[in-house]
Amino acid sequence: MTPREQAVAAREASRVLQALDSEARSALLRRMADALDAHRPRILEANAADLAEADGLSEALRARLGLSEGKLETLAAGLRTLADSPDPIGRVLRRTELSPGLELRQETAPLGVLLVIFESRPDAVSQIAGLALRAGNGLLLKGGKEALHSNRALHAVLTEALEPDVPAAVIGLVETREEVADLLALDDVIDLVVPRGSGSLVRHIQENTRIPVLGHAEGICHVYVDAGADLAKAAAIVVDAKCDYPAACNAMETLLLDASLPETSQRALVDVLVEAGVDVLGGPRASETLGLAPAGDLHTEYGELVCAVELVDGATGAIDHVHAHGSGHTEAIVTEDAEAARLFLDRVDAACVFHNASTRFADGFRFGLGAEVGISTARIHARGPVGVDGLLTTRWKLEGAGHTAGAFARGEVAYTHRNLPAGDA
Amino acid sequence: MTPREQAVAAREASRVLQALDSEARSALLRRMADALDAHRPRILEANAADLAEADGLSEALRARLGLSEGKLETLAAGLRTLADSPDPIGRVLRRTELSPGLELRQETAPLGVLLVIFESRPDAVSQIAGLALRAGNGLLLKGGKEALHSNRALHAVLTEALEPDVPAAVIGLVETREEVADLLALDDVIDLVVPRGSGSLVRHIQENTRIPVLGHAEGICHVYVDAGADLAKAAAIVVDAKCDYPAACNAMETLLLDASLPETSQRALVDVLVEAGVDVLGGPRASETLGLAPAGDLHTEYGELVCAVELVDGATGAIDHVHAHGSGHTEAIVTEDAEAARLFLDRVDAACVFHNASTRFADGFRFGLGAEVGISTARIHARGPVGVDGLLTTRWKLEGAGHTAGAFARGEVAYTHRNLPAGDA
Repeated sequence: MTPREQAVAAREASRVLQALDSEARSALLRRMADALDAHRPRILEANAADLAEADGLSEALRARLGLSEGKLETLAAGLRTLADSPDPIGRVLRRTELSPGLELRQETAPLGVLLVIFESRPDAVSQIAGLALRAGNGLLLKGGKEALHSNRALHAVLTEALEPDVPAAVIGLVETREEVADLLALDDVIDLVVPRGSGSLVRHIQENTRIPVLGHAEGICHVYVDAGADLAKAAAIVVDAKCDYPAACNAMETLLLDASLPETSQRALVDVLVEAGVDVLGGPRASETLGLAPAGDLHTEYGELVCAVELVDGATGAIDHVHAHGSGHTEAIVTEDAEAARLFLDRVDAACVFHNASTRFADGFRFGLGAEVGISTARIHARGPVGVDGLLTTRWKLEGAGHTAGAFARGEVAYTHRNLPAGDA
Repeated sequence: MTPREQAVAAREASRVLQALDSEARSALLRRMADALDAHRPRILEANAADLAEADGLSEALRARLGLSEGKLETLAAGLRTLADSPDPIGRVLRRTELSPGLELRQETAPLGVLLVIFESRPDAVSQIAGLALRAGNGLLLKGGKEALHSNRALHAVLTEALEPDVPAAVIGLVETREEVADLLALDDVIDLVVPRGSGSLVRHIQENTRIPVLGHAEGICHVYVDAGADLAKAAAIVVDAKCDYPAACNAMETLLLDASLPETSQRALVDVLVEAGVDVLGGPRASETLGLAPAGDLHTEYGELVCAVELVDGATGAIDHVHAHGSGHTEAIVTEDAEAARLFLDRVDAACVFHNASTRFADGFRFGLGAEVGISTARIHARGPVGVDGLLTTRWKLEGAGHTAGAFARGEVAYTHRNLPAGDA
């Protein structure tokens, strides 16, 4: 099959999936979970082959690549949880009586065909397949080549469980970069690309397709400590935001200090980072007054235990700095001054804006969205941490009794445009 | 100013606009309305200059180009209605207690900077400026060259009314195609392009930018008359869908007839179109059994009093035909059979799916959305008729009391993820 044939087959199979009712779609997910249970030896054997070939990998990458009885049990449980979750399709977002007997509903609907590109973790095959199918979508999956045998085994086990109700083609496995390049050209068949991986992967995808991309190339997050901050809270938040998981996109890269904070407070916040093992660099103002080694470009994602510090003039100065140097991901203010907090929350133009909380909370699980599709810094479609809602679109359904627009134009009937309570379809 | 400088200036001015509260933003719209009232002679004089230069234009285009005291009064009233409408910014879509004292809100927020390209009607300057500003956005406007003097006068009058509160640059006027080409490359500054015009304009824009485009290049809408249809309703809907305004994107292009309808019923529906002045062509099956002149490609937007007719096998055949030949705009079924209606409404993959109602209802005003931004056939961000919601994005706001992710990881605090009632901020 060519990439186009594979994508079209996924679209057609997704329409078979969409024709099933919610209970039947849930039953498919339970069958997928059962298949993971039943075929553990086959999957673990494939995974062992990947691990055997993975000589050059670091210990951390080997741990991500490796599957186990426990991991497979967790994956099956995840599919069963999704099967039990409320149907995301057909939720009524808006209901309006246009005129007596003419009722309009806006309902959630499957997005269509997704192309998801992920790196070494083969667990993603099951997690992404579950999410995509729960929302009625077709899926094309491209994993890392180091997990080739594992991905193939998981894909085979999961798609065998779908048949005969839904064609296996509803989840296509893509194995080469050339196929991905071909798929990225298919903006007439593929509706959304979700790259899950490094900033350079995301940037490469964004620059090479017209298909909308859900993701973020960078996470340059700031914590601004205002003159009105409680310094104990500030110290805890700053250390958490930088050190909890420095490689995460929601980790702090630059600490902004209100220039009107006493110099002892400014030094105390720098010291707490240094004590936590952070290499602290200074922006132009901070390197001068606090004697820090100069940071380079303040638009830098360090991704490790390094951060920049800079002085700004109050919340307004912080907002300007964030707009000039941030990536629109997550920005936080620490203050007890309600006015400064409101200013920051209202004016900062970013996916997530926090007050007295660590930037590390910017995450689908922590936000209570359930499974996370990704974090988007785009302003279109979905912004910030995205759950299953990012895999949906809407449809307008209108039900009448022979209504014509001409009758309204001639004044025989009139629009009422009465809002009706929304809720389940 | 270069196009980039103009776009950046609109972004910066939009942040000044966003810093105003709802009442202050409403007051700006009222000042714009007052300015339209006060400067009618200036605007009408500019419009007269455009009309004087518009020798070659058809009568219909001259009517679209012409302004009048009455049209200007309507535009001012439109701005005042928008000023009185509820604030679209800061609506709380979702509220969750992540843990005691840690509350998350998802709120609507301005999208950013819009580029709107429209054709001859200068009225659009005021309508689009009102919508964009009500939603806190910066705007770049490109009108047709035949309305150059009118657009300049309207733009000057409206932006003069904004100062000194908001820089005039919040609405930039773009006058040449070269500038538009430059702007389409600025995907780092411009957030959405809205082309309002012909399919070829929309297609040209879509093919020449990475910025998301809100619009539709084609409207190939079908009406399917099921064996279970009430023929009187079918006749009324079919004539309305084709003849009410044949140039509209929501007009019917192809009539699908259930092959199991009696041939007399099939002929009656063709006859009612012929009597209404429609040139009726036949697809492969219909041209054979009903003796119609053969239609060409069934993926054709006639846009005039011409339509194709084709026979299909029941609702399932209609759905397959629509998926093969439609443009994802608006599709309608006429039937009294609840099962066939449900099948069609649930399975047809289009922005709008109607039952016993004319396709002509697919329209923002008729849907009760207020002012219409456009009709989108994309699946991302906004689908179908789009009101002011299409000019918004969301932001996540989190308010805590010094919360750190580490404390949750260490088990000192637990997530509650309790849904709270949403509503106004």
